[in-house]
Amino acid sequence: MKQYMEQAIQLAKSADGQTGVNPLVGAVLVKDGRIVGMGAHLKAGEPHAEVHAIRMAGAAASGATLYVTLEPCSHHGKTPPCADLIVESGIKRVVVAMKDPNPLVAGNGIVRLQAAGVEVDVGLLEEEARALNPAFLRSLETKRPYVILKTATSLDGKVALETGESQWVTSSEARRDVHELRATVDAILTGIGTVLADDPSLTVRLDRVTRQPKRVVLDRDLRLPLASTLARTAEDVPVLLFTSSDEAERRERAQAVGIELFDYTSLGTVLETLYANGIGRVLIEAGPTLVTSLLDGGYVDEWVAYQSPRVFGGKHGVYRSQQEGTIDGISRFTIHQVETIGPDLKVVLRKGPL
Amino acid sequence: MKQYMEQAIQLAKSADGQTGVNPLVGAVLVKDGRIVGMGAHLKAGEPHAEVHAIRMAGAAASGATLYVTLEPCSHHGKTPPCADLIVESGIKRVVVAMKDPNPLVAGNGIVRLQAAGVEVDVGLLEEEARALNPAFLRSLETKRPYVILKTATSLDGKVALETGESQWVTSSEARRDVHELRATVDAILTGIGTVLADDPSLTVRLDRVTRQPKRVVLDRDLRLPLASTLARTAEDVPVLLFTSSDEAERRERAQAVGIELFDYTSLGTVLETLYANGIGRVLIEAGPTLVTSLLDGGYVDEWVAYQSPRVFGGKHGVYRSQQEGTIDGISRFTIHQVETIGPDLKVVLRKGPL
Repeated sequence: MKQYMEQAIQLAKSADGQTGVNPLVGAVLVKDGRIVGMGAHLKAGEPHAEVHAIRMAGAAASGATLYVTLEPCSHHGKTPPCADLIVESGIKRVVVAMKDPNPLVAGNGIVRLQAAGVEVDVGLLEEEARALNPAFLRSLETKRPYVILKTATSLDGKVALETGESQWVTSSEARRDVHELRATVDAILTGIGTVLADDPSLTVRLDRVTRQPKRVVLDRDLRLPLASTLARTAEDVPVLLFTSSDEAERRERAQAVGIELFDYTSLGTVLETLYANGIGRVLIEAGPTLVTSLLDGGYVDEWVAYQSPRVFGGKHGVYRSQQEGTIDGISRFTIHQVETIGPDLKVVLRKGPL
Repeated sequence: MKQYMEQAIQLAKSADGQTGVNPLVGAVLVKDGRIVGMGAHLKAGEPHAEVHAIRMAGAAASGATLYVTLEPCSHHGKTPPCADLIVESGIKRVVVAMKDPNPLVAGNGIVRLQAAGVEVDVGLLEEEARALNPAFLRSLETKRPYVILKTATSLDGKVALETGESQWVTSSEARRDVHELRATVDAILTGIGTVLADDPSLTVRLDRVTRQPKRVVLDRDLRLPLASTLARTAEDVPVLLFTSSDEAERRERAQAVGIELFDYTSLGTVLETLYANGIGRVLIEAGPTLVTSLLDGGYVDEWVAYQSPRVFGGKHGVYRSQQEGTIDGISRFTIHQVETIGPDLKVVLRKGPL
């Protein structure tokens, strides 16, 4: 029944932004035409969607049909295998929207259920289920977080006036929207140039938000001032600093205020390190140098481009490279969403052509 | 009755793009709760909306109520005064959405009706009626056409790759949309640089369109090649060329192929000359030099910015000036509409802040 899977998808969505490297998953348990259990995966390390649904159902799970947006897991991760719990609970049929592409699962969950005599159907609303987790699906392939680039420019793509004036290119409404965006990620990454110029706090300043993303700084020469806002608040909200500096004293001072140090060799390895440290979604808020490197490296999965309806002119473009080849040969994004935020334009683009 | 004025506004809209310097106007004539006549102004020099409605009603106009989106005229222009016809037809009440700001009318139509014993009410759906004619209202003040700037750039505001490749920055869908835009204007203006680089025809290539906008070229030194598409088609679709060249031979050759010559002193006088020649809406399709001059001069009333979801980098920005002063001090536009056209973004901006 499509309606139950739709409900499972809605349940999954309700945890958007809080599952880290884990996918959004929803589950609905149905018996005799009545919903007896519902669940969603809420946080990495906490129970999976199926577990919540089965617990809610209690004894009613026996003989019921489970609708779940992702194949139940078959391996011992931070929680025991869901496939086993499903079998134990007496569920007689499982409807799965999509197989889990995670190589640790990849069909094993389904095999395990079938081997225990549970009827399994795969593919109901698969496309909608896939759309729940673009970050998760891509990261599984790349071992890197889903990378969201945020830029704020004039209509002609400039980040600053020729005088250098650059703060608040866009409106207060757009800046508030950035806090909403920050609230959906596990980490915010910037370059040392931005830290030195703007001394940002890179925190989510919204009343309802208590969980703060980690702050990540690319700082080859370890120039981060200990008096900076980031350094002064590193004990409260983690700061991960990537550097290739081996100056022992600087490293010790940084560590002493609570900053975690990592080796900086390349953008690709930075992203892999972040993923290995549990960061599934990272937001880039940086200057043109880093923006250009990320775009040229093809690392940007999603681009949230705020544009002020003004022209700046001058030379401070957000993108500093020169694309080579023909126009048709240039890598492009697909426009996913456009809207106005206060007086400004917000364009959300995703990697790749249509 | 609001519904009749809404209908009059719809009638007015149906002539969008074909009334030149004249405003869109609609009229509905109602008697005993029944519509007895309807009309819209279709073309400059042809009957006004009220005339069509009264003719349709015939004898039924006597004792009827007229709903009209703009104050009936009181002066002899290309057609006799509508106010007189209304009185003669025996209409007993006129509901006017907005006064005509044209100094030749400006309340005189209303006074004339009232003096003849016709009841007049003003202001029903005034805002909606004003929104019908932004071009008309602004042009009355400035004596210049409503200026629409079209640009096609990459997401970072570039018109070409560093190699110079520039044709078809945006998609075929966007280019088709440009033809729809062209179909709404009286003239398309470009600079000689664009003519020499691209040899454009600047015509509307849509099956349903037979009326072509005039083509206007700014060509200070009269460099337009006689072999260009514009020159070769000047007999079919008018070409107006603004030049400060006094080379007699060149001038004669251009005029011999049907090109009309005008003096080029400044952008402001070019626009005034166009308006004086019956051009109420002009579309600018030009290169960065002219685009920059128009923006810096504050001449752009509406900006239709197509953006391809790609970054080009390099130095070929669409806007070449450097804005002076602070970010808050910079002139800005208001985003009127955003949509996707095929893979591209289309942003329609209008002059001035919110």
